[in-house]
Amino acid sequence: MAETSSKSKKRQRAGKDFLTTELPFKNRLKPDSVILQTLEPLVASSSSSSSSSAPSSASSSSKPLTLSDLSLSATCREVSDFSLSDVQSSIESLVLSITHSILSGQGFSFNVPSRAASNQLYVPELDRIVLRDKNTLRPFAHISSVRKSTITAKILSLIHQLCLKNIHVTKRDLFYTDVKLFQDQTQSDAVLDDVSCMLGCTRSSLNVIAAEKGVVVGRLVFSDNGDMIDCTKMGMGGKAIPPNIDRVGDMRSDALFILLVEKDAAYIRLAEDRFYNRFPCIIVTAKGQPDVATRLFLRKMKMELKLPVLALVDSDPYGLKILSVYGCGSKNMSYDSANLTTPDIKWLGIRPSDLDKYKIPEQCRLPMTEQDIKTGKDLLEEDFVKKNPGWVEELTLMVKTKQKAEIQALSSFGFQYLSEVYLPLKLQQQDWL
Amino acid sequence: MAETSSKSKKRQRAGKDFLTTELPFKNRLKPDSVILQTLEPLVASSSSSSSSSAPSSASSSSKPLTLSDLSLSATCREVSDFSLSDVQSSIESLVLSITHSILSGQGFSFNVPSRAASNQLYVPELDRIVLRDKNTLRPFAHISSVRKSTITAKILSLIHQLCLKNIHVTKRDLFYTDVKLFQDQTQSDAVLDDVSCMLGCTRSSLNVIAAEKGVVVGRLVFSDNGDMIDCTKMGMGGKAIPPNIDRVGDMRSDALFILLVEKDAAYIRLAEDRFYNRFPCIIVTAKGQPDVATRLFLRKMKMELKLPVLALVDSDPYGLKILSVYGCGSKNMSYDSANLTTPDIKWLGIRPSDLDKYKIPEQCRLPMTEQDIKTGKDLLEEDFVKKNPGWVEELTLMVKTKQKAEIQALSSFGFQYLSEVYLPLKLQQQDWL
Repeated sequence: MAETSSKSKKRQRAGKDFLTTELPFKNRLKPDSVILQTLEPLVASSSSSSSSSAPSSASSSSKPLTLSDLSLSATCREVSDFSLSDVQSSIESLVLSITHSILSGQGFSFNVPSRAASNQLYVPELDRIVLRDKNTLRPFAHISSVRKSTITAKILSLIHQLCLKNIHVTKRDLFYTDVKLFQDQTQSDAVLDDVSCMLGCTRSSLNVIAAEKGVVVGRLVFSDNGDMIDCTKMGMGGKAIPPNIDRVGDMRSDALFILLVEKDAAYIRLAEDRFYNRFPCIIVTAKGQPDVATRLFLRKMKMELKLPVLALVDSDPYGLKILSVYGCGSKNMSYDSANLTTPDIKWLGIRPSDLDKYKIPEQCRLPMTEQDIKTGKDLLEEDFVKKNPGWVEELTLMVKTKQKAEIQALSSFGFQYLSEVYLPLKLQQQDWL
Repeated sequence: MAETSSKSKKRQRAGKDFLTTELPFKNRLKPDSVILQTLEPLVASSSSSSSSSAPSSASSSSKPLTLSDLSLSATCREVSDFSLSDVQSSIESLVLSITHSILSGQGFSFNVPSRAASNQLYVPELDRIVLRDKNTLRPFAHISSVRKSTITAKILSLIHQLCLKNIHVTKRDLFYTDVKLFQDQTQSDAVLDDVSCMLGCTRSSLNVIAAEKGVVVGRLVFSDNGDMIDCTKMGMGGKAIPPNIDRVGDMRSDALFILLVEKDAAYIRLAEDRFYNRFPCIIVTAKGQPDVATRLFLRKMKMELKLPVLALVDSDPYGLKILSVYGCGSKNMSYDSANLTTPDIKWLGIRPSDLDKYKIPEQCRLPMTEQDIKTGKDLLEEDFVKKNPGWVEELTLMVKTKQKAEIQALSSFGFQYLSEVYLPLKLQQQDWL
């Protein structure tokens, strides 16, 4: 049988490993074809998961829950993608209404949504953080807000220019257009988010982008600014994720899942081994902290391709925190959580229980610092963790054992242990939470 | 005339700019076709530059100077690219000779090239830092070196395994194979460089790679691990530079120059504007500090395509330092400077003299800190700066005016000032040092 011969060939290779013993758990692996069969229903369920959880209430079976489904649209706010001409006309109407206000003797002020912590809300049904509807007045004719309202007017005028020109700029570019006024980039950055909220559109609609950081490789074809990109033909380096999601489109894939990887070392291993050819998948990483471009790209893949997302992060509080930013959003950009978050990300590994289960040697585990333990305990109080009993159990174990481990700790069993044993076994056992 | 009509169209576009005045210096720009004509001789001269400076001494007209041309090969050392089987057999001979030494009663010790600062030398003729030939004995039977010699033996055995498997791993992977022994990643990293020096091969020959950081876009076609990549069809995101240069090949280009950009904000601007279509070029950035993969990739482009490299960096001491790492190498990896450095990089901008020349507004210039000024003065003492009178002049001006500016400061004239005026004018005037 072809299966057996390819298996024995693999055994032979493993025998060459620098560890003289057989790789732990390798003998539990079934043939790839069997693992692939177990994965297929996953795609089917992922593409219809929202319809099964809310069979009749939602108008369209594939649409995720929204604020209005939960009757929250009056008390919470959310932005949406605007076309450039919509952004342009919103700015123009805003300016018109301010002119009216001035002419009618009511003065010049902006009514800006508050983005303070007290105005944030985690909604379990949506599994993400949203922004409540409190506003703050920013009058020009007041000593405490004259600067901020001037900055707001300036940012609005700059964005209006970007719409006319249809180009993208970075936050740093914005800052440099008037250093004297902004003084410090944090000030123009903050007002930029205010402007997004105020206009009710996403920050990407404003054509202001963050520097790109992420890369993607594997079973994905998409268009970047008109060029068709085949991510199976991107060598080992992969394709840099474009900074502007609005010029990304035409996504096609025959993958069974998306593998979201925290660090680039693990990404490189999987890219070189072309793991996506053995188990059809798309591999994506932001190389650490998730940036806006990678978050938008991941969401777009999940939404358009209807694939399950499995996350491979370090077994420490920051790994889980990173997972949560992809899944539920960050507080700073909660006004745009609907567009930035990817629902239903599964925690594949490295999970605290894996440390014993996969017999990761003591010397490859690291003791958690006081700060780590505090962050872990804080996470246990967060709603998005509490909601998932499996996550609570894992995190409790982490805080109890006071041990953490990086993905790379698997290298103690051989450099390819991750791609040849750990991940295939995880997939075979559908071992995710 | 077609030229005039396209020019007047551009004027019209510029008129829409958010600055009501005409863009400064835009009126000095000649038509693109004229600028392109002035650039063409540049390529010709770049591909034969080394032959003109040393018309008869070098054996091959296109080969750069080497240590042996300068009779330095006896007192300085240098590594070269090895094939995997060469690395494997060097390790095997090394181990054999150590076995011999043990059997003949002379004990077990490694003879390791010293990488201390006192063993570094800047060679003006080569315009890079090289390593002298001092060695240090690392005996196993000595309390001060028993750990380090054990680590060395372990790293050698790991590298030997990588050769057998023909896979690439990161430094972090290496560290995790024996945390108990290495204790700390800096220890395994340092010994890895020692092993490179000892075997006389480059670190990339060892199949140990650094995380990828750089991106490339523009008029370049190359192969990454067997896949052909066309960098004019990489959208706005560009192609991530592969971490392993040994799987990069088949470079082809119709560019006139390579534009090396320090920061990603400027890279994004140029990628979106498809600057490489207006002026045929290849645009590359490491997004800040140059990483090994980007340095190797830049050198490979320069060597294979014989194109001039023009650098666009911030006008501060760190911009020049970054330029120098690409050009002359870093002290830590001086043993491999021949492979890591790109000769003859031109300093295009932003140069200290540009601040007044291009009338960059006062508020977009930043005062240099004490540390900046000290770094600037230290650079003035470095041989690689002294060698270039133009650089000395610029750096002296910077230290004197105590002003610095980022590339993004050009945004004060409009977001596309960089791609529409500054760079074209620089090219037209051949204004680089």
